[in-house]
Amino acid sequence: MKKLLVEFIGSLVISTVLVIAAMQNSWMELSFAVGFVYMAMVYTGGHISGGHFNPAVSLAVFLRGRMSMRDLPGFVLVQFLGAALGAGLGSLCVTTKQSTGIVLNADIVAAMATELLGTFVLCFVFLNVASSRTTIGNSFYGLALGGMMVGCMLTFGKISGGAFNPALGLSLGISNISGFGNIWVHWVAEVTGSVAAAFCFVFIHGKEN
Amino acid sequence: MKKLLVEFIGSLVISTVLVIAAMQNSWMELSFAVGFVYMAMVYTGGHISGGHFNPAVSLAVFLRGRMSMRDLPGFVLVQFLGAALGAGLGSLCVTTKQSTGIVLNADIVAAMATELLGTFVLCFVFLNVASSRTTIGNSFYGLALGGMMVGCMLTFGKISGGAFNPALGLSLGISNISGFGNIWVHWVAEVTGSVAAAFCFVFIHGKEN
Amino acid sequence: MKKLLVEFIGSLVISTVLVIAAMQNSWMELSFAVGFVYMAMVYTGGHISGGHFNPAVSLAVFLRGRMSMRDLPGFVLVQFLGAALGAGLGSLCVTTKQSTGIVLNADIVAAMATELLGTFVLCFVFLNVASSRTTIGNSFYGLALGGMMVGCMLTFGKISGGAFNPALGLSLGISNISGFGNIWVHWVAEVTGSVAAAFCFVFIHGKEN
Amino acid sequence: MKKLLVEFIGSLVISTVLVIAAMQNSWMELSFAVGFVYMAMVYTGGHISGGHFNPAVSLAVFLRGRMSMRDLPGFVLVQFLGAALGAGLGSLCVTTKQSTGIVLNADIVAAMATELLGTFVLCFVFLNVASSRTTIGNSFYGLALGGMMVGCMLTFGKISGGAFNPALGLSLGISNISGFGNIWVHWVAEVTGSVAAAFCFVFIHGKEN
Repeated sequence: MKKLLVEFIGSLVISTVLVIAAMQNSWMELSFAVGFVYMAMVYTGGHISGGHFNPAVSLAVFLRGRMSMRDLPGFVLVQFLGAALGAGLGSLCVTTKQSTGIVLNADIVAAMATELLGTFVLCFVFLNVASSRTTIGNSFYGLALGGMMVGCMLTFGKISGGAFNPALGLSLGISNISGFGNIWVHWVAEVTGSVAAAFCFVFIHGKEN
Repeated sequence: MKKLLVEFIGSLVISTVLVIAAMQNSWMELSFAVGFVYMAMVYTGGHISGGHFNPAVSLAVFLRGRMSMRDLPGFVLVQFLGAALGAGLGSLCVTTKQSTGIVLNADIVAAMATELLGTFVLCFVFLNVASSRTTIGNSFYGLALGGMMVGCMLTFGKISGGAFNPALGLSLGISNISGFGNIWVHWVAEVTGSVAAAFCFVFIHGKEN
Repeated sequence: MKKLLVEFIGSLVISTVLVIAAMQNSWMELSFAVGFVYMAMVYTGGHISGGHFNPAVSLAVFLRGRMSMRDLPGFVLVQFLGAALGAGLGSLCVTTKQSTGIVLNADIVAAMATELLGTFVLCFVFLNVASSRTTIGNSFYGLALGGMMVGCMLTFGKISGGAFNPALGLSLGISNISGFGNIWVHWVAEVTGSVAAAFCFVFIHGKEN
Repeated sequence: MKKLLVEFIGSLVISTVLVIAAMQNSWMELSFAVGFVYMAMVYTGGHISGGHFNPAVSLAVFLRGRMSMRDLPGFVLVQFLGAALGAGLGSLCVTTKQSTGIVLNADIVAAMATELLGTFVLCFVFLNVASSRTTIGNSFYGLALGGMMVGCMLTFGKISGGAFNPALGLSLGISNISGFGNIWVHWVAEVTGSVAAAFCFVFIHGKEN
């Protein structure tokens, strides 16, 4: 229950920041805001729920064998709920849209490739810095994840719309930033990226690491 | 006494930076300057006073049971004194106002909602990374707080005027940036956010954590 | 084998980000994207392969006595392969070039001097924060390397084209950003910088440190 | 000897970056480049020389009782030498000045006040995060110093010309960025800030901490 509350709060905050920033900030400000708030929430919730805030990350952690089948649906559910509520809250708070927001690139293949690569990398970073025995007790896990998010948003995000997170993909759809029609692009690419990262990690370390 | 001196110095420096940046820097420069200086002061003063520099944080730490009733008024007093002095110093140093500064959004409800959410999140981060037994001895507490400050300033700050700190709210009023008339908006939202964060933390961890 | 896979993935990701950012992002966004993604990959791969992702770094680690003669060619090979593949992938994903990209300064001497200094500094940072006995177990090695990369890209990169990494130099050539004709400038300067850093480190610490 | 070599290399690199950035980068890029490179050099040299790269910091460390009278002149000398050489190198590398560079504010009193406050804060941060027994073994000292440098450059630097470091003040004079006539402003303010920080630290902790 406590884990789910923390995942809910974190997903809500990250989603609110994403939606507000997509409506009124420059692309660079958006990337830093989302990445730094994600970093802070990972450090805040890491010792309680693991600090996922992303169904793709939860899926990768489950596939790699560090999360039980029973916990996964609850995590994914509250992440979507938090993101949806955050998107609504963010939309209500912005009275004048000052930014063109996030647009999905015309080239669906390029959008899927970058979204897949971004999600793969984020999940691969998570598995290595926040779930591996050899890096236990480090103080850098949030920085690695937040820094990767900033870098992926800055570059891949301009092509794919940039979420690397199925729950944030929903946020962008709900808040009418990238439109509902493109949610499936996010979801297919993100799930594939997550599975690839888990496979890659298990291939390198073995499941028992 | 030593704790109060450190809280005074930190509040003065953060307030000076905020007031100077609000008068001559871009919004992105302002957000990074305030967030990074806050981060550095937290790392500098953390081992002496805990590194609050924010009456909302001190209130949350008190409510969560890590600060005595006797210490609270002194902390809050020097934080306001430092911020006020810093605002005066900053105003004197800027000879030509180059920036439009911080403006409070016309929508009071949106301003209060974002100010409340920002203060809640900052206090919730602080309680988890700098006052919890399970994260003791980490090297990331200042980074988590500074990163969250950057993210909140970039996004919420454009709507609420952005202080997430009653003492900095006073600074903005004194230095004629957001005007005295709006200080109550900051204060009501910030105290509410602080109480909510303390409640949430105690609900999750229990007081003895 | 596992080490080579991690070096390959990291080099591919960093190269993709560099090439995409060089085609569509501002110089500041490019510098942060490359530096932050490099930082995250160092934290991700550090516990497996050491987190080089740069033939100049691998050379310096070998010269300083922390890598066997047998491992070096494999590392360098997969770093070039990953960077080449990443450059191709990045080029395919960008449909409309929105940025002037990276241009090599007309002054070859200045380009070589800054490229040499940048590579020297990056390798010197690596040897001290990620291969020295006295800094073992720290959580800052990726931050130091990523931060230095951001700083070098921002300043030296505007003069030399900015790679500080023979594999990324190849990426810039392949993707037609700085042209094949200038790759030798990168390579000569980078190898010299790497050798100088290893010499300097051994002079200060001795090989057994 | 090894300590002096590291202080020389670090001062040279930071000064080169400052001078190049002041001639061709935006103010925000300049602040991040100098702050991040300073951060990386502190992490690189900290375990050898302490990572000062700043005569004001060395003076504060001496006054606080952590450096012998015999070591101080050598440190200060190589810091000035490195900075001077770096300024020359940087000037040679920039063929076309693309930026207005750093200008000293017309108001000398404001310039001295901000330069003094910036140097005081930087030295106070250093003494607390890198010389105090209670924060020994932390991984955040470079981040705190680099972050403070970014914040001070962004805000105070626009008023004072921004060095917070007598050796970098010389760099700005030599490379004709802020002019020789203003070096005394830097030096008087910086020495005063350094002495104040040492006094403040000793008042709070006592010399034996």
